[in-house]
Amino acid sequence: MQKYRMLLQYLGTRYAGWQVQKGRPTVQQLLQEALEQISGERVSVVGSGRTDSGVHALGQVAHFRLSMPREVPRLEKALNGVLPWDVRVLRLREAPAGFHAQRDARRKRYLYRIHNGPVLPPFLYGRVFHARRPLDAALMQAGATGIRGRHDFSGFAASRSRVRDKRRTVSLSRVCRRGHYLDYCIEGDGFLHHMVRNIAGTLLEVGWRRRPPEDVRRILEARDRRLAGPTAAARGLYLARVWY
Amino acid sequence: MQKYRMLLQYLGTRYAGWQVQKGRPTVQQLLQEALEQISGERVSVVGSGRTDSGVHALGQVAHFRLSMPREVPRLEKALNGVLPWDVRVLRLREAPAGFHAQRDARRKRYLYRIHNGPVLPPFLYGRVFHARRPLDAALMQAGATGIRGRHDFSGFAASRSRVRDKRRTVSLSRVCRRGHYLDYCIEGDGFLHHMVRNIAGTLLEVGWRRRPPEDVRRILEARDRRLAGPTAAARGLYLARVWY
Repeated sequence: MQKYRMLLQYLGTRYAGWQVQKGRPTVQQLLQEALEQISGERVSVVGSGRTDSGVHALGQVAHFRLSMPREVPRLEKALNGVLPWDVRVLRLREAPAGFHAQRDARRKRYLYRIHNGPVLPPFLYGRVFHARRPLDAALMQAGATGIRGRHDFSGFAASRSRVRDKRRTVSLSRVCRRGHYLDYCIEGDGFLHHMVRNIAGTLLEVGWRRRPPEDVRRILEARDRRLAGPTAAARGLYLARVWY
Repeated sequence: MQKYRMLLQYLGTRYAGWQVQKGRPTVQQLLQEALEQISGERVSVVGSGRTDSGVHALGQVAHFRLSMPREVPRLEKALNGVLPWDVRVLRLREAPAGFHAQRDARRKRYLYRIHNGPVLPPFLYGRVFHARRPLDAALMQAGATGIRGRHDFSGFAASRSRVRDKRRTVSLSRVCRRGHYLDYCIEGDGFLHHMVRNIAGTLLEVGWRRRPPEDVRRILEARDRRLAGPTAAARGLYLARVWY
């Protein structure tokens, strides 16, 4: 068996997320079907983690194995030939047998992209969250700072989340504004289901001055999801990078 | 009668260009229908110039008149409410009765966007021309320089073009490369049908070293469309700005 590792980009709009689901198109399923079509083998693709329905990826990483090894550049070309335009393999390479895209991921970066102007440019439709009313980026940054460090993130996890240990370390949590464009960037060693979107939803309320930036710390400390803001829309979220 | 002027952005993919055509969706028609729906009047929208089927606009300018004047911010909001997501009014304002979006345009800028990497990022699909094989940007720039100045552009005009005077002044003609992204930027006092796409198609052949950069001048001087490269794909072209 030969193991391969790939760097992927996808526009999540048409997909019910990463993970295979019955009767709904997903990115993992597309990749498995493409590989099966090319290799004639049954292939299982393992990603660094799931992304939700509608979430995009600038740098998802996944691995798979083939019993009949293939030439890498040819396999990459064949894959992009079979895949639809909105899922692309940016780079494919051979990986050591021990490599595991999910278990070996040390750190991830997510971006939550917001357009904060009165009119959404057509080129950004479905690719950012459109916040019409002005956001105070300085207040949002003050709130974002409270996320950094090692915490129990129960307050920002999906209420249905069944993970037992909800402690994660966030090494970067920053709001950047350039004109009407506002990016929230977060890096950490792991993320709970809906965690980034729940933080983004809370920061949006802070930016609109509906709640003070100190609330972010309060939610963390109370570990109570009901205190946080709504889950921000999937279309603004990008899995930007995975480190191994 | 009150005259209004608007700044527009559109993603050209779904449209048969700017100008009204029977049985095909166009941007001009969409705008006229939206204005008629809002005002109850028959409205004629005049753009700075046509854009071809599939061509995008970052800054198209158009005017129209209403016999019943409207409050500007409300009219702008109503228009964006009625228009589909891929056509947006970025700014609407009252214009003097003498203003004419087409006749008063002094200068225009077009961008021809190329992605010059092996794999097209999904976020750029339909929004750039994807040139897989490496392009030599320095050669393209050498060719682009030959376009500057006042010339008869017959060599780069659509062969069916019926405009009599084909002399135009190009004040800027430049190729910019940033990594895999390559933009050709051209500014001038007027453009013939297919002119930018025919120049871009020729510069692509220069970039691939299929012809020397001096060919650009030769085509200009010979005034023979058959000497130029193919018309580059519409999806890479943007009407970027119009000056008055």
